[in-house]
Amino acid sequence: ANPVDDAAAERLKATFDSEELAAFLHDGVDKLQRREELVKLLQSQPWSDKTHRYFLTREQEYVGGLEAAVGIWQQMRGERLSMEDGITMRSLAYFPGGLELHIGMFIPTILGQGTPEQQAKWLPLCNRLQIIGTYAQTELGHGTFVRGLQTVAVYDEASKEFVVHSPSLESTKWWPGGMGKTATHVILMARLFVKGKDYGPHSFVVQIRDLATHLPLAGVSVGDIGPKMGFNGVDNGYLSLDHVRIPRDAMLMRFAQVTEEGRYIPPPPDNQKAAYATMVYVRATIVRDSGDFLSRAVTIATRYAAVRRQTATKLGEPELQVLDYDNVQQILLPLMSRAYALVFMGRSMMDMYHSFDSARARGDFSVLPELHALSSGLKALSTDIAATGIETARRQCGGHGYMLASGLPTLFNSYVQNCTWEGDNNVMYLQTARYLMKAAIAVQTGKPLTGSAKYLSDAARQPNAKCQVAAPEDWRAPAHQLAALAAVAAQLTAQAAAVLARAGGGRPGVEGEAWNSSSVDLIRAARAHIALYLHQNFIECVEAASSQRKLSAGPAAVLRQLVALHGVATLLDAAGDLQERGYATGRQVALLRGEQRTLVRALRPNAVALTDSFGYPDYMLNSALGRRDGNVYQALLDSAKSSPLNATQEGPAWKPVLEPLLNPQARSRL
Amino acid sequence: ANPVDDAAAERLKATFDSEELAAFLHDGVDKLQRREELVKLLQSQPWSDKTHRYFLTREQEYVGGLEAAVGIWQQMRGERLSMEDGITMRSLAYFPGGLELHIGMFIPTILGQGTPEQQAKWLPLCNRLQIIGTYAQTELGHGTFVRGLQTVAVYDEASKEFVVHSPSLESTKWWPGGMGKTATHVILMARLFVKGKDYGPHSFVVQIRDLATHLPLAGVSVGDIGPKMGFNGVDNGYLSLDHVRIPRDAMLMRFAQVTEEGRYIPPPPDNQKAAYATMVYVRATIVRDSGDFLSRAVTIATRYAAVRRQTATKLGEPELQVLDYDNVQQILLPLMSRAYALVFMGRSMMDMYHSFDSARARGDFSVLPELHALSSGLKALSTDIAATGIETARRQCGGHGYMLASGLPTLFNSYVQNCTWEGDNNVMYLQTARYLMKAAIAVQTGKPLTGSAKYLSDAARQPNAKCQVAAPEDWRAPAHQLAALAAVAAQLTAQAAAVLARAGGGRPGVEGEAWNSSSVDLIRAARAHIALYLHQNFIECVEAASSQRKLSAGPAAVLRQLVALHGVATLLDAAGDLQERGYATGRQVALLRGEQRTLVRALRPNAVALTDSFGYPDYMLNSALGRRDGNVYQALLDSAKSSPLNATQEGPAWKPVLEPLLNPQARSRL
Ligand SMILES: Cc1cc2nc3c(=O)[nH]c(=O)nc-3n(C[C@H](O)[C@H](O)[C@H](O)COP(=O)(O)OP(=O)(O)OC[C@H]3O[C@@H](n4cnc5c(N)ncnc54)[C@H](O)[C@@H]3O)c2cc1C
Ligand SMILES: Cc1cc2nc3c(=O)[nH]c(=O)nc-3n(C[C@H](O)[C@H](O)[C@H](O)COP(=O)(O)OP(=O)(O)OC[C@H]3O[C@@H](n4cnc5c(N)ncnc54)[C@H](O)[C@@H]3O)c2cc1C
Repeated sequence: ANPVDDAAAERLKATFDSEELAAFLHDGVDKLQRREELVKLLQSQPWSDKTHRYFLTREQEYVGGLEAAVGIWQQMRGERLSMEDGITMRSLAYFPGGLELHIGMFIPTILGQGTPEQQAKWLPLCNRLQIIGTYAQTELGHGTFVRGLQTVAVYDEASKEFVVHSPSLESTKWWPGGMGKTATHVILMARLFVKGKDYGPHSFVVQIRDLATHLPLAGVSVGDIGPKMGFNGVDNGYLSLDHVRIPRDAMLMRFAQVTEEGRYIPPPPDNQKAAYATMVYVRATIVRDSGDFLSRAVTIATRYAAVRRQTATKLGEPELQVLDYDNVQQILLPLMSRAYALVFMGRSMMDMYHSFDSARARGDFSVLPELHALSSGLKALSTDIAATGIETARRQCGGHGYMLASGLPTLFNSYVQNCTWEGDNNVMYLQTARYLMKAAIAVQTGKPLTGSAKYLSDAARQPNAKCQVAAPEDWRAPAHQLAALAAVAAQLTAQAAAVLARAGGGRPGVEGEAWNSSSVDLIRAARAHIALYLHQNFIECVEAASSQRKLSAGPAAVLRQLVALHGVATLLDAAGDLQERGYATGRQVALLRGEQRTLVRALRPNAVALTDSFGYPDYMLNSALGRRDGNVYQALLDSAKSSPLNATQEGPAWKPVLEPLLNPQARSRL
Repeated sequence: ANPVDDAAAERLKATFDSEELAAFLHDGVDKLQRREELVKLLQSQPWSDKTHRYFLTREQEYVGGLEAAVGIWQQMRGERLSMEDGITMRSLAYFPGGLELHIGMFIPTILGQGTPEQQAKWLPLCNRLQIIGTYAQTELGHGTFVRGLQTVAVYDEASKEFVVHSPSLESTKWWPGGMGKTATHVILMARLFVKGKDYGPHSFVVQIRDLATHLPLAGVSVGDIGPKMGFNGVDNGYLSLDHVRIPRDAMLMRFAQVTEEGRYIPPPPDNQKAAYATMVYVRATIVRDSGDFLSRAVTIATRYAAVRRQTATKLGEPELQVLDYDNVQQILLPLMSRAYALVFMGRSMMDMYHSFDSARARGDFSVLPELHALSSGLKALSTDIAATGIETARRQCGGHGYMLASGLPTLFNSYVQNCTWEGDNNVMYLQTARYLMKAAIAVQTGKPLTGSAKYLSDAARQPNAKCQVAAPEDWRAPAHQLAALAAVAAQLTAQAAAVLARAGGGRPGVEGEAWNSSSVDLIRAARAHIALYLHQNFIECVEAASSQRKLSAGPAAVLRQLVALHGVATLLDAAGDLQERGYATGRQVALLRGEQRTLVRALRPNAVALTDSFGYPDYMLNSALGRRDGNVYQALLDSAKSSPLNATQEGPAWKPVLEPLLNPQARSRL
């Protein structure tokens, strides 16, 4: 058995057309083809070459990340490529660098919060990369608690300027991407003071570096914060300001304003809602990315497990593909189902955002509370699942999964920050929990619920509902799965409400001491609520695609198996809770476990085809183990041979360290 | 509130003397003092300076790791320091490099498997570092399945030499530490062929590089395998041999032998046992290290959580120490209990090894099967707990935990390989499962069991035993905890035995197809068995220390709380299993959860003192967040300022990438 043959044989086993599913997931064959063309384009450019990507020093990574971003930008302008092509190229090249925040936060904030004049002033410069910006909110001392930021912007009526200043060590800005060595400008979040009064954090455009020399301006201390677990192409920065003066129109004044004479005009009430809308957007993209990253890891690990053979019962007999060990397949196939669930969730989340955005244009913000609660919890759950899943997939690859050449360590180390940035996951779950607790109180007072928490009313009406599963295959039915997930979520919500009420001495409240001392139960409830939502969405998407005939019977049947497995795996995670209040019996839980095994066995022949449907070109995965053709050992060896440590035969320690010890002549000279 | 004051205030809250506990854990105050002296010594040497450790390129890390190892070695010789001092210095400096395998495997293998003549020939060279060796077993195509290795050593009777050869791409040796650029010699595991007959893998000492030039010898291709997730100071290598001739006495012949005329003398039957003994030793050290690494991570995260304040309910009020959020403390304190459990397990494991070693000297191998089963499972469980725990601790630190300066990313990335090397954890659990299945069969046939699986007999006698817990505090009692853990382990063992029997069509068997398709259940059983053992050991160690008056009442009481929390946390992990066969009711599980909260609250005041008792000097942790004095923000900023990317103000991308875009003059020149 040879790995290339094994890979080919796997594809013959498939019961469905993986290309059909790939086209569906990428919105058409033409988009997939366009991607192939862009891969070719990127492979022909030095700045997007990936053969040395895993060998770069921090400095090389930093410079390389910028070169790639600028390369794509120039390519787009030169070839008049579409914005969509640009986004695709950025994701194919995947080389995060000093421009991430310019594109992802600086421009959008000016668009969202700048006046028309401010937009006219800044956006052309941004688009031509004649200035580079970032978003400076977090400080050494404050991340989660934005209201506690300490940087100040004091309006000076005499000069009609603001004086921006960092009053303490803790107020040093810390983390903004690209601020270390790249950005010339920042959106500074600073507490606005007018006539001695503190109006809390507002946004200002502040230039920090000279455009001709790139040196920090007077009063500005700025630099890179140092190396991180991953994402080292990005120069996250620190910034301290010493009474720096900026003009009045540096404040982004679409909503709040400060007049020349120093009158503060508060933002209209909808302003806060607009800010939430931006957050919802960013979180939607994070949910989308979670499916993207987990599916890459699952692709690599599954393909490798299909060609890695290890251990024969008798010497001389063929060794088993490790994907055929129960322990490997019962990890990788449930992970596959999670990856698909997240991919569909990401698509739905973006759709939800866009339909909210249209409603908003008509002044309709009615879905915002629900959307905010969902997007916070989904941000947390999807990044938890993806981060844990990537590392779990990596560990299935044995020793070779520890090599950067496998692609998996970099995937994990650069992905895992998603559990933290844009809101630490615990804090995110607690946002969802706030919504849930309000819903729980509404249920207690008999108010009818709508939206994603509706099942809480139903559950309150039937507190003693029991699981109706009698045979293993019953667990495959969406109705049984959803009923069980809803039962768990309702039970944990009720439990959290009780814990919270007890801690608060009976008084309801969604912050303060009682809240802070109940957060474990609150987070458990939020997680269960979102897990139900995620699974429900997966079911609905697959059913819709199938009933609308967007998919033929082959792929639809396999997706239904994945849906079933996703439900079963999610429920097994909750085995304790299912039983705790008597919703399910121990026997029903045992059936659940049996059904997971059955579904995994059923999906096994399609494992590799399901990775093909994700549609990742080899160039994008950049993985010796995840190659489509299965030629893993040759790829590992080729990669090793180009490692910089092999530039000389004797290696960099020979002269300074080893020769004096090992070389008999050198030793005798000592 | 300032972090330094917060740190000091925490220490005043403690109810016990953390130094007393530290002295106990380090076998005496004098050992702790000696460590302090060695820290001073290391801090005065350039090769053990840690201020730039997180900034190194791969090359610098490789050279630096060797310099540190050689520095310690020369220090030991020059100052005539003890072996114990050397080990302490290596652990304080913690700079893994090209000598790890020379010390950890090459020398021990020659000691264990070489004849007296071979030892006399090689050991003096090893000890003077005139040769450097490694252990080359794994190949590109074979790691777990050692019997499948493909490298061959063919005895040539004519020349009385062996011809060692790599017959295929997959047979390329891959992974041996230090083999890439450092080692001059390897212990080569190769299939021995004599007169055409294959005797399976045997050990040979093979020189691979010239001592005067460090160039590979003729027929040898060798190099570094490339960068990894962590441990990059170590030059893991690849090696391919093209019909290289080595003398007959290069085969390590203490056990198996090949005579000059080409007669194969098989090893005595005890040889296999001796090999197991070495494995047990290595696994014991891995168990010991698990407590060491997890406790470092818990120290860093707990100290930081005690000085990090974030979020006030009302602006202006003091913000909460994040350790006072339910969600943070209910993660960190159970992790603390796990770290202590592993530290005690590591001590017991080393004791067990040593007492086995004395028995072995008397020819008594009776405990070996039990010890092998335990050490395999403990290797897996302890590394799983530590690896997952380090990353969990890291995530509690918010954004700053993503910085290398926190120490946590490096801890995780360098530790996590322990789940893979020396036997992938799944494969390790399956070793334990093999022992358990034999025990289960013995129970079925009514044979009485002894040793760690004895509880299986008791469980079989009382299949319907029920949990006797009635009040929350009952869950604190060791007897209730052990009964519950034993019930779960017995139930999962019976379940795995049933699955295995069903898969095998009723025939018992501990390998083959039925085995491979039951491995999820087998692994679950093994994990539960080992979890019981780990907790039992923790209880016994703490009770022994207390009853033998090695600890006064203060620390003993706190350790008992940790033991109780460890039991509760371990049982909560098994909440589903506890209920599945009706051993515990949902209400009892709910009490368990309540009791975890109570214990966490009770331990909270001692959290920082418990980190002090682990006794890590700041030099060793090398963490801006884990500093004893709490001065975290200053430490982060200081570290950033010395980052190489800040060597110039304008940064390395200015000239090549940014100036042509940003500088108006440069632009106009285009
Ligand atoms: C890679 C990366 C890139 C970033 N890029 C930027 C950027 O470009 N611009 C920018 O301004 N910022 C950036 N950040 C900062 C980021 O937004 C913050 O790190 C993030 O919001 C988390 O806040 P924190 O670090 O203060 O965590 P903390 O709030 O300190 O969290 C520490 C712990 O306390 C807990 N905790 C804190 N508050 C509460 C609460 N109220 N209830 C319960 N638990 C609580 C958390 O769960 C966590 O366990 C970046 C961060 C990272 C890691
Ligand atoms: C950092 C590091 C340092 C190392 N140093 C050395 C060294 O110095 N010298 C040396 O010789 N080697 C070294 N190794 C190699 C190491 O010993 C192997 O990687 C390890 O034994 C795992 O084997 P593998 O890589 O072949 O995994 P594989 O066996 O390929 O495992 C892949 C997957 O298959 C599963 N699997 C495989 N077989 C079975 C089975 N029978 N039943 C159930 N599941 C199975 C595993 O659980 C895993 O999920 C090192 C490895 C690492 C990561």
